[in-house]
Amino acid sequence: MNQDALPPGSLDAAIREMEAALGKDNVLTEAEGMADHGDPFAPPGEWYSPGAVLLPGSVEEVQALLRIANRHKTPIWTSSQGRNKGYGGGAPRVSGSFVVSLRRMNRVLEVDEENCMALVEPGVRFFDLYEHLRSTGSKLWMSVPDLGGGSVIGNALEHGVGYTPIGDHFGQHCGMEVVLANGDVLRTGMGGMSNPHNWLIYPHSAGPTPDGLFTQSNYGIVTKMGVSLFHAPEVYAPGWFMLDNEEHFGSFLEVLRPLMIDGTIPNQPMIINAVCAASAFGERKEWYTGEDSIPEEVLDKIAATPGFGRWVMRFALYGDAPVVAHNRAKIEKAFTAIPGGSVVFEEFDGRNLPEFDNPHHRVQAGIPSMALDQMTRWYGGEEGGHIGFSCAMPIAGKDGCAIRDLTRKVLNERGLDYSAAIIVGKRSMIHVALVVFDTKNERQTREAYAATKAMLEPAAKLGYGEYRSHLDFMDEVAALYDFNDNAQRRFAETIKDVLDPNGILSPGKQGIWPKAWREG
Amino acid sequence: MNQDALPPGSLDAAIREMEAALGKDNVLTEAEGMADHGDPFAPPGEWYSPGAVLLPGSVEEVQALLRIANRHKTPIWTSSQGRNKGYGGGAPRVSGSFVVSLRRMNRVLEVDEENCMALVEPGVRFFDLYEHLRSTGSKLWMSVPDLGGGSVIGNALEHGVGYTPIGDHFGQHCGMEVVLANGDVLRTGMGGMSNPHNWLIYPHSAGPTPDGLFTQSNYGIVTKMGVSLFHAPEVYAPGWFMLDNEEHFGSFLEVLRPLMIDGTIPNQPMIINAVCAASAFGERKEWYTGEDSIPEEVLDKIAATPGFGRWVMRFALYGDAPVVAHNRAKIEKAFTAIPGGSVVFEEFDGRNLPEFDNPHHRVQAGIPSMALDQMTRWYGGEEGGHIGFSCAMPIAGKDGCAIRDLTRKVLNERGLDYSAAIIVGKRSMIHVALVVFDTKNERQTREAYAATKAMLEPAAKLGYGEYRSHLDFMDEVAALYDFNDNAQRRFAETIKDVLDPNGILSPGKQGIWPKAWREG
Repeated sequence: MNQDALPPGSLDAAIREMEAALGKDNVLTEAEGMADHGDPFAPPGEWYSPGAVLLPGSVEEVQALLRIANRHKTPIWTSSQGRNKGYGGGAPRVSGSFVVSLRRMNRVLEVDEENCMALVEPGVRFFDLYEHLRSTGSKLWMSVPDLGGGSVIGNALEHGVGYTPIGDHFGQHCGMEVVLANGDVLRTGMGGMSNPHNWLIYPHSAGPTPDGLFTQSNYGIVTKMGVSLFHAPEVYAPGWFMLDNEEHFGSFLEVLRPLMIDGTIPNQPMIINAVCAASAFGERKEWYTGEDSIPEEVLDKIAATPGFGRWVMRFALYGDAPVVAHNRAKIEKAFTAIPGGSVVFEEFDGRNLPEFDNPHHRVQAGIPSMALDQMTRWYGGEEGGHIGFSCAMPIAGKDGCAIRDLTRKVLNERGLDYSAAIIVGKRSMIHVALVVFDTKNERQTREAYAATKAMLEPAAKLGYGEYRSHLDFMDEVAALYDFNDNAQRRFAETIKDVLDPNGILSPGKQGIWPKAWREG
Repeated sequence: MNQDALPPGSLDAAIREMEAALGKDNVLTEAEGMADHGDPFAPPGEWYSPGAVLLPGSVEEVQALLRIANRHKTPIWTSSQGRNKGYGGGAPRVSGSFVVSLRRMNRVLEVDEENCMALVEPGVRFFDLYEHLRSTGSKLWMSVPDLGGGSVIGNALEHGVGYTPIGDHFGQHCGMEVVLANGDVLRTGMGGMSNPHNWLIYPHSAGPTPDGLFTQSNYGIVTKMGVSLFHAPEVYAPGWFMLDNEEHFGSFLEVLRPLMIDGTIPNQPMIINAVCAASAFGERKEWYTGEDSIPEEVLDKIAATPGFGRWVMRFALYGDAPVVAHNRAKIEKAFTAIPGGSVVFEEFDGRNLPEFDNPHHRVQAGIPSMALDQMTRWYGGEEGGHIGFSCAMPIAGKDGCAIRDLTRKVLNERGLDYSAAIIVGKRSMIHVALVVFDTKNERQTREAYAATKAMLEPAAKLGYGEYRSHLDFMDEVAALYDFNDNAQRRFAETIKDVLDPNGILSPGKQGIWPKAWREG
């Protein structure tokens, strides 16, 4: 529940200057226009919401609005598209702030076919980049998250992932342009040279590499970024692993770990439990209508549905036919040795893909869609919402079972279902408890938020840190990074105060508050 | 030529306190003890040299020496081992500074066999980590640069590379501990939690990621880092590509690029020219004794030596036998289509390696050695020296030919040979002109430094930025990152001034000077 808000009228003086700088059409002050820039799943009442929305169209307009915000000391909360819906969407941590949406800055500035890179603006959605590649005849593949409506840059800056071999989106970026709070324009890496020949191919300059500072932070507004693409593979082989029991979930993760570290599985697999699998195809009421959490025997019924299981993993292989064949056989052998485990693969010509009906086949081939939005409709249909409770941990049976047991218990105690999607990387996995609820049901919505907060501390005790967080518990998450009396926050505040002395950029983002707010 | 030096006696008052804090044995003030902490290849006369050397043995001692340096406002220049000899070794940018060497902090704190990671201190050399792995029965492989005497951490912080599939050492790190100028201890990523369970497996926390800030910078002293290791492959197949002519050097790079981006070649190949190849096996006088640069007909003679060529590339494949076999055939087909090109491979059981005579076989298997030190003995034998002139650029024929022609011309005009080692990454290559000279020959030594400086600006015009630089031209290199009136330097100075207000940490490192020095 939001307790930080600007008093009414705080923006009035600045709004007129913003209108002069950006044009009246690009300053939204009516509830209707702002609705798409808030938290889409918030419970009724006081919550995180913009005071006005600014839509700059260029770097110069970003600089202009920063000048005005500095003069008036009004906070501006920046999002690229504001589509990270499970974490608060485009809404500001401090209600009544300006929200800067970069949706109008949506140009694909360059596609470098030889080096498999693109240079994009923050308003470029995964859909936009995909359309650009296809319409310009590029042969390259890109990486997308489950939903293609978000910003390519915004996703990377929030440490979001995709599901191809280049799915670590921040790790795969090369080069940034950032407008600092004082309006200065910084280009990182070799974009720091007058001749930016190397900007998209070498990630450092001679000197410190600041790119990571601009992720999950409030230090600047990223206005350009270099994004990795990859060659269409000879063979694209999406696969499914199904596990029909809970008992061997831990041993499955033990089998998976070396296959990830060695690159036998080259993309970012996603492991989902029975509830999450069912939610991709329909609503809860098709399975159960009780108000308590879904019972074991119903889970067993879901798990017995062909293609489902107690746990299902989506993954894919990419490459030359003999390499894919070898890795496929290796994976089949390893996974079918797990009691209750089975594997299926399909294979496609990567240079000549069919139109896929299956949205998972699209996602892992880097083709954006919105089909998997269905998952958040488990409880409320069109009015369904979710919060992500998203912890990192090693790919290990012990850890997977511990977080499963912890989150399932807390959610079930509050009558909520345990829907899990585990995003697997090379050495770590992010266990996302998709805390789903019906936004029309205020009690359930509030339970969902409360349950999520209740899981933070027990997870942290086990060493499982949140990899990102909803607006509503950014402070709590930051507090749990408590080594040496919260040295990380102390360091972050030191940088904040010198880069943004007026504290205008996204105050409270990830628990980083400007000096005036810390003291006030 | 160094013009920045502390006046004599500047350290006197602080030295006594340093002796009390670290013990007399760990404060070196005699020329003999300091000799190993300076620039090993400097010409005679005024040059970069320490005023005293400090050898802390723990984080607490690092904090203690920072307190003393802050009190006295005396600069301290930190190196881990000080073995980056082509860039000034352990010597300070400001002569007469304290040099802090972290050689005594040399513990391997952890090897995580399951997740293929190690946690090390900065004094751990590649040799030390290797010995630790072998003596503790670890089955894991590590990554090493050509010379194994340097610090694992120091190499990564300078954006150095190794020659295995995990050869991007900074890119492959996970987690850091840094002592800031004020003595505060920061742990990055999930090391920021009291329970550091995730420290070595997930690289971010919830909030900004500052790790890159501590590379090639003077913002803190890195005291721990997580380092990637990898599983021994079933097959280890080092290969050589030989090109017998200059004409097709460009087309070779065009063939190479997609093989790198696709990961067909998974390690970091090194491409060397005839002079560099010959220098690995003997001295120049075996081929030519003239004082001018080595003539074309002698280069042809070198190139005609079995195993050499006008250009030779070292690379290796790693993995399961069928995958290595497929990639090997693909590479053989691609490279032998280049006129004058030939390929040879050897194959070894990765789980049961023989003792290699060939140092290149060792390097690409992550086994440290010092054998390739020979390359710097081209002119002066035991007294030979070198400077690295090291530009990044795309893996492209146009770029490879342009930098070859530029550096060869400048060096040859000054009577110096063109010795090139090109380190190839996934999307970029670093062309290192190994500017070799006889340190006993003052004229030649000064020519080498002057030639290197003369190449900076023409290379920058083409967009080729230095990826690191010798002490003697850090300012010049920083100046060439000149987008938006040197926005990178402006940003770096802003961070410097707030993290290190007394300007004690490595003033001048990569052209970043503290406020007092900028104004003084």
